[in-house]
Amino acid sequence: MRTVQVGQAILSRNDKLAERNRGFFQAHKLSVVNVLSGPGSGKTTFLRETARGLNGKLKTGIIVGDLATDNDAQKLRASGAPVVQITTGTMCHLEANMIAKALKQLPVEELQLLIIENVGNLVCPASFDLGEDLRVVLLSVTEGEDKPLKYPPMFQAADVVIISKIDLAEACEFNPEQALANIRRVAPKARVFETSAKTGEGMDAWREYLVEYHLRGKGDPGRSGGEV
Amino acid sequence: MRTVQVGQAILSRNDKLAERNRGFFQAHKLSVVNVLSGPGSGKTTFLRETARGLNGKLKTGIIVGDLATDNDAQKLRASGAPVVQITTGTMCHLEANMIAKALKQLPVEELQLLIIENVGNLVCPASFDLGEDLRVVLLSVTEGEDKPLKYPPMFQAADVVIISKIDLAEACEFNPEQALANIRRVAPKARVFETSAKTGEGMDAWREYLVEYHLRGKGDPGRSGGEV
Repeated sequence: MRTVQVGQAILSRNDKLAERNRGFFQAHKLSVVNVLSGPGSGKTTFLRETARGLNGKLKTGIIVGDLATDNDAQKLRASGAPVVQITTGTMCHLEANMIAKALKQLPVEELQLLIIENVGNLVCPASFDLGEDLRVVLLSVTEGEDKPLKYPPMFQAADVVIISKIDLAEACEFNPEQALANIRRVAPKARVFETSAKTGEGMDAWREYLVEYHLRGKGDPGRSGGEV
Repeated sequence: MRTVQVGQAILSRNDKLAERNRGFFQAHKLSVVNVLSGPGSGKTTFLRETARGLNGKLKTGIIVGDLATDNDAQKLRASGAPVVQITTGTMCHLEANMIAKALKQLPVEELQLLIIENVGNLVCPASFDLGEDLRVVLLSVTEGEDKPLKYPPMFQAADVVIISKIDLAEACEFNPEQALANIRRVAPKARVFETSAKTGEGMDAWREYLVEYHLRGKGDPGRSGGEV
């Protein structure tokens, strides 16, 4: 089938460029997280608070992808970290070459952590490696416990799952045990953090995890994976 | 660019098959709504309550698309309507040919309304016409007021925008005026309903709209649009 072949060619080209990014990141001792979720799960607020709390601990830069508007970039700049916006137009995911281009606008030599906020989409970005060390998938309590089972490719590829907006759990009748069981079925090795960027719950543990992950170094080629 | 051309070829093939569906629907006097949103915005519960309340008013059938699991199909069957599940695997949207195939499993001659619950994705399904009369986009109060601006292709194509989970508005500090202003900027003609499938708020108005829409008939070829 021609369409499938072309699709594979795009993916294979992206995979190569992602490895090139990975080598570039290793050379710069830059830890890179690719943050993914559906729209409205609270990625931007979560990442703003992540970067704000890392001030003085890890020098952090941010790349953010959106179809339109620079609302998220503006919000992220409040963290104090340098932010580069990628406007994708109608494209539903970020690709490795976009990251390579955006890197030129960041002071890479000075950074230790690069956070990439992907386009809000729980399907397509799963197929596109950006050269990251860690894939972080957000699941908001407002989305329901069943999402890991309904969107398996995204959760299977997660090294870390962040349950976000945990302050709304009661209002949403969210069952954390059920959610955890569903995450475990799809991503048995993923680290899970329950967080609220609003109240701060769980944010310290998550930031400490990032600091430790970075300090352990980037000895292994390729992603380090959820066994961390 | 080769990839773009192939993408256009897929879209153009889909557009033709969507018109074929549209003709088929007209012949059967079947009103068809394509329901779209991001993951976890409450589409399934909203549609279950929509179909349940239409019992005895409009003979309704449902087609539901999901990457994996038949959770949604099971939930929708509780409405009493016949439900056909399409499992898309890794595909991020429904296409017209999938609908044509699924129709064979529905008692089309007996139906007046066909509800299509698309894959949870606020980007890709916008590009794929299924032959529907109405596009309905859900925006959950938990997703935030800015989504129409951040995902313009989806909202621009909406005939109806459903603000869902309105019972959670206060807990989420959701500002309905701001949301409405954002919807109006992107989709000035769309009909907007504020609803809660949980409390029933706004559900009668939405169901009456569907009944009236159907009763006014399907005289015009193609979609009737948001001016209704």
